[in-house]
Amino acid sequence: MELRYEGKAKRVYRTGDPGVYLCEYKDDATAFNAQKRGTIPHKGEVNCTIAGIIFTYLEQRGIPTHFLRQVSPTQMEVKAVRILPIEVVIRNRTAGSLCQRLGLERGIPIQPPLLEFYYKNDPLGDPLITPDHIALLGLATPSEVEQLATKARQINQHLQDFFRRCDLELIDFKLEFGRDPQGEILLADEISPDTCRLWDLRGSGEQRVLDKDLFRFDLGDPVAGYQEVLQRIRAAYPTASPRP
Amino acid sequence: MELRYEGKAKRVYRTGDPGVYLCEYKDDATAFNAQKRGTIPHKGEVNCTIAGIIFTYLEQRGIPTHFLRQVSPTQMEVKAVRILPIEVVIRNRTAGSLCQRLGLERGIPIQPPLLEFYYKNDPLGDPLITPDHIALLGLATPSEVEQLATKARQINQHLQDFFRRCDLELIDFKLEFGRDPQGEILLADEISPDTCRLWDLRGSGEQRVLDKDLFRFDLGDPVAGYQEVLQRIRAAYPTASPRP
Repeated sequence: MELRYEGKAKRVYRTGDPGVYLCEYKDDATAFNAQKRGTIPHKGEVNCTIAGIIFTYLEQRGIPTHFLRQVSPTQMEVKAVRILPIEVVIRNRTAGSLCQRLGLERGIPIQPPLLEFYYKNDPLGDPLITPDHIALLGLATPSEVEQLATKARQINQHLQDFFRRCDLELIDFKLEFGRDPQGEILLADEISPDTCRLWDLRGSGEQRVLDKDLFRFDLGDPVAGYQEVLQRIRAAYPTASPRP
Repeated sequence: MELRYEGKAKRVYRTGDPGVYLCEYKDDATAFNAQKRGTIPHKGEVNCTIAGIIFTYLEQRGIPTHFLRQVSPTQMEVKAVRILPIEVVIRNRTAGSLCQRLGLERGIPIQPPLLEFYYKNDPLGDPLITPDHIALLGLATPSEVEQLATKARQINQHLQDFFRRCDLELIDFKLEFGRDPQGEILLADEISPDTCRLWDLRGSGEQRVLDKDLFRFDLGDPVAGYQEVLQRIRAAYPTASPRP
């Protein structure tokens, strides 16, 4: 199969069907704009499975996604979309780069949740952008930007519910969207502990971290953290197994 | 007189009148978040005079400013306001940090003009912020942010006209605003070749630069550039001398 794109955590291949890509999740982990690199064993299969369950959950709640079906522990078939070079971030509490950038303490609740756009551009370090920058760069139309914001806020509601049932608090997360051949905007990329900050409502302090911050800041064993997230999802949603 | 604040280019003193500050313009120049430092001889008096003429011009067009009167070549009396820690930037063409941040070529016209907010915070390097960050940080109310945007766009119209009559193109500029004791938002700080990018419509290429980029990038003699701007303003507005 022809490799269409290789990212930091996934490879995307063309398939025999021009409307379908195969998305393969890797164990590779990077942080701080790829200045820190490593491997988290089993991350590929854990994230592929979590993302499949969450995409299905969102589809059932009326959010169109690129997800079609999981076809192996680390592979899912997805609709062929063109990814918009915009990262949409929603923050329910202060954490990560927001705290560094604005000098804010970690963990402050943000109400209403904060929505940010970043320009997905590695050489530029994924800078923060506004809808006016998006227009200037020609990355999306104003109506598409509206859609991204609306969808991201809806997804945040659903994901907060989803993770609360697993005793996990959704601190913040990053979304990517794609345009299908008809120009419809679909949720794409992945949703997993690589792209969400998840704090354990059963724990306290630094022990609460169950996401990529384990790897970023060497806070604990990322393998165990990611597995814990998957186990809780499986326990809370016993019928939500990936479609065969 | 009691020094209230010393910035990179100005000192602000209290006066006998609690409603009036004395603003003293310095020859000191800094760039790149004060990583480059120097002196531009006569800058203090040139910028004080230019700012006084422009504040008067804007007042006459219905924009309230903190300016009261120029009291010496380098000093003006201004209304006592609390400066909002927000820099409002308007860009009519791509230049400077925008090009670096977004990987854009220099000199591309931007229509409608781009409006950006930055958090005025030296230790943090004056980061780009959105209205939602302003709310989160409690820097201003949403209605004040609306006012800043509306005023900045009006000021841009007036300043473009003002400089065009001097054969200067206003590429971009930075504004600061303050709250007076009644909570009214006034244009404050300064407007000068330190805070505006001005390109010479009579010249071409790098020779067109007549602003702080002369100092930032060693493009030519800043003293001569700043004097040229003042001379053109005086020639275009012969009756606009600072109030005695």
